Amino acid sequence: MAFPNVRIVLCNPSHPGNIGAVARAMKTMQLDKLYLVEPKVFPHADATARAAGADDILAAAQVCNTLDEAIGDCHLVMGASARIRSLSCPVVSPDACARLVKGENKTQQIALLFGREHSGLTNKEIDRCHHLIHIPSNEEFSSLNLASAVQIVAYELMKSRQGTDSDNLHTDLLECASSADVERFYEHLEQTLIKVQFLDPAAPRHVMRRLRRLFNRARPDIIELNVLRGMLTAMQNKSNEQQ
Amino acid sequence: MAFPNVRIVLCNPSHPGNIGAVARAMKTMQLDKLYLVEPKVFPHADATARAAGADDILAAAQVCNTLDEAIGDCHLVMGASARIRSLSCPVVSPDACARLVKGENKTQQIALLFGREHSGLTNKEIDRCHHLIHIPSNEEFSSLNLASAVQIVAYELMKSRQGTDSDNLHTDLLECASSADVERFYEHLEQTLIKVQFLDPAAPRHVMRRLRRLFNRARPDIIELNVLRGMLTAMQNKSNEQQ
Repeated sequence: MAFPNVRIVLCNPSHPGNIGAVARAMKTMQLDKLYLVEPKVFPHADATARAAGADDILAAAQVCNTLDEAIGDCHLVMGASARIRSLSCPVVSPDACARLVKGENKTQQIALLFGREHSGLTNKEIDRCHHLIHIPSNEEFSSLNLASAVQIVAYELMKSRQGTDSDNLHTDLLECASSADVERFYEHLEQTLIKVQFLDPAAPRHVMRRLRRLFNRARPDIIELNVLRGMLTAMQNKSNEQQ
Repeated sequence: MAFPNVRIVLCNPSHPGNIGAVARAMKTMQLDKLYLVEPKVFPHADATARAAGADDILAAAQVCNTLDEAIGDCHLVMGASARIRSLSCPVVSPDACARLVKGENKTQQIALLFGREHSGLTNKEIDRCHHLIHIPSNEEFSSLNLASAVQIVAYELMKSRQGTDSDNLHTDLLECASSADVERFYEHLEQTLIKVQFLDPAAPRHVMRRLRRLFNRARPDIIELNVLRGMLTAMQNKSNEQQ
């Protein structure tokens, strides 16, 4: 397959038919890693029917109970979104997404997230993304079918792979921290901010989301994450001294 | 609608569900003219269900008995084809197709032909085409769903119309903090790290350089910088309490 380090992650899909159609869309574009986070129904005859020959993708699909299970080991996470939210991460077009994937070190795992049929990704899911993928569409009727959205993004990946142009964007080969490691940093950061009374857990406002957006943009590598964690530990120790 | 002179022509579609899915794919990309040449079944509840809100496209669809009826008044005809036939017309990619459409005089009618679910376009139909549209795909599994094929071509039309400079990785328009503001933040950060004894001014190693590199990558905006400064102030206040 073309992109062994790329996985398609469907969050909470309602219709098994759509899961099958996604598998088919993936296979036509040489993608084969499908993760399903809490699918309503799976496996199901409708999924197999709509897969139309991409049964191997369905058979190998990973069913996960949490998003963490599906993306914990990933270093780059991009989520498809029809709406551009006010407080969100940088937005890229599907072709820019493909260039990012192409420019990434092949040893890094990449997750492309797609949300529920009717409501898309939750804010919590979006907070795990480094970029949002926005598919240009009719502003008055932007409701792409789930498999159509996957099809377009997968098609751009296919195109970029075939493309001879090597204008590689974003090739700094940092050893990025994994999504799970970064998540632990955010927990540590939040605890520290509560401790120094910058963050009121009763009224957190958007502080953590803003900080997530900032650090997700930077994509800390492992050493940087260690420096940040060390900073937080020093701050907590200092606060503890006085108690 | 975006391309009033462009019509999607489905030749002999078997499944009414696919017709509905095509209508939906069209509408998401601002196309509204659908022609059906000898559909097996139409109208049908499956078509309406899969149209998912694009019923207006279905209601206005022209059902034709012959291809001639559907494309007779057209000046440019392009047909989608998975196989590249030996004796065929020039083959273009979906984005090249979009460029051809965009370059065409708006008074000229343009038809984009899509064939049967299982066998595509006949040679006779292909002979009516000026170009064949070939969607890049997995050579071992090129069976795109009919609506997916329409979706991809319509998406390229949409892209070309928006003239989205596809090289533009458009990060949302953050009002970046000025270099001087960021510099003040670094000073503040350094003082705080010294205070919590994370940073030893006598042996600073590379801590500040690492942190600069990280934050410079993220390019904080003004609000984010305020949040970071607020955090540092809270940490300093906490440290002061004990002195």
